[in-house]
Amino acid sequence: MLDSLNLGRHISGQFNAELESIRTHVLAMGGLVEQQLADALKAMHKQDIELARRVIKDDHKVNAMEVAIDEACTRIIAKRQPTASDLRLVIAIIKTITDLERIGDVAESIAKVALENFTNKQYNLLVSLEALGQSAVRMLHEVLDAFARMDVKAAIDVYQEDDRIDREYEAIIRQLMTYMMEDPRSIPNVLQVMWSARSIERVGDRCQNICEYIIYFVKGKDIRHTSQEELENILK
Amino acid sequence: MLDSLNLGRHISGQFNAELESIRTHVLAMGGLVEQQLADALKAMHKQDIELARRVIKDDHKVNAMEVAIDEACTRIIAKRQPTASDLRLVIAIIKTITDLERIGDVAESIAKVALENFTNKQYNLLVSLEALGQSAVRMLHEVLDAFARMDVKAAIDVYQEDDRIDREYEAIIRQLMTYMMEDPRSIPNVLQVMWSARSIERVGDRCQNICEYIIYFVKGKDIRHTSQEELENILK
Repeated sequence: MLDSLNLGRHISGQFNAELESIRTHVLAMGGLVEQQLADALKAMHKQDIELARRVIKDDHKVNAMEVAIDEACTRIIAKRQPTASDLRLVIAIIKTITDLERIGDVAESIAKVALENFTNKQYNLLVSLEALGQSAVRMLHEVLDAFARMDVKAAIDVYQEDDRIDREYEAIIRQLMTYMMEDPRSIPNVLQVMWSARSIERVGDRCQNICEYIIYFVKGKDIRHTSQEELENILK
Repeated sequence: MLDSLNLGRHISGQFNAELESIRTHVLAMGGLVEQQLADALKAMHKQDIELARRVIKDDHKVNAMEVAIDEACTRIIAKRQPTASDLRLVIAIIKTITDLERIGDVAESIAKVALENFTNKQYNLLVSLEALGQSAVRMLHEVLDAFARMDVKAAIDVYQEDDRIDREYEAIIRQLMTYMMEDPRSIPNVLQVMWSARSIERVGDRCQNICEYIIYFVKGKDIRHTSQEELENILK
């Protein structure tokens, strides 16, 4: 599958090394974001104040990686003037890191909500997000895996997982709504949980974006705003 | 201010024309998105079913513009191999249109919520979003204006407007929360209004992103994740 990157064909070994280094940094950034999201969910579930604080403290690392990779991408375009699939790879990376950075923000905001709610009675409600959170972490892990191998088939599989996350999210919202209606005093706290649920659901959307960039890179085709049916045709 | 684009210095008149054409398309896309957002809010406020339907129907135009501009950007990088400020302009455009497209999605989703709620009793709640919506439309208009002139000073002014939108948003959420607590049967409908409020508030964040791209283009400096204080230093 690495063959699809055509890493062997560059005359300039230095260019190869630079592209490969950027790819490695993207995967490292993805790994950190996945860790941040998993830790934020764990902090929420285990009521681990220290862990929640560390997630918040470490968000700047994600931001710094985004800026550094972005600069490296601009430099490589200016210096090496890539065309065709090399250029598509750089553009795909520029877009991917934007979504990764936003997933990092989600981890930070979950950690903050968890921290704010450590002392309150509806804390157990936050725990109801655990399964949804695990689905999001899994989807992120799989999309990073597809990115590492630039595997279109895997990207399309991950893309379709978002439906399940959407269904889990809808079920949680219904459950929380019932809770609110039964105990109106709980509303402010339940709303906090709802915002967290929604931002976890958005992680799925961001993973879908990354799937689109993988397909754009490999197939040279922009599949955003493409129907499910057309999507399946890409694989044929 | 147009001098900062250095449009005069290209040896290739054709390259000039291409860059200028892309810029014109971005402004046209921005104009359409602004119209969509204003129409969605008007449809909500005036209970105008036809207008709400048209906003939903026209979202595909925004999407198509994004894809077309994105392709034009990739083509110009491959063909003209821009460097320095030309390259920064193209990168700034690639990022700007992503945010514009998402603002278009917000317009569509407001139109959908307005449509779903035309028959229900808490409809008047949706009207409470009008002022917030107007602030968001104004901020979008101003950031597009700053983009057209690549005016850093204007971009920083717009950037700071987001604080006001955040405060308006917080006030609406508090008001809606009180409403829910007083009448728990209203909860499902009020939640719809809250989701709309939140997506309008996010328009402000996306406008801030566009401000950052303007500053990145003009100053060659990535100001994301920069403190307010550092931001003010840029102007010195």
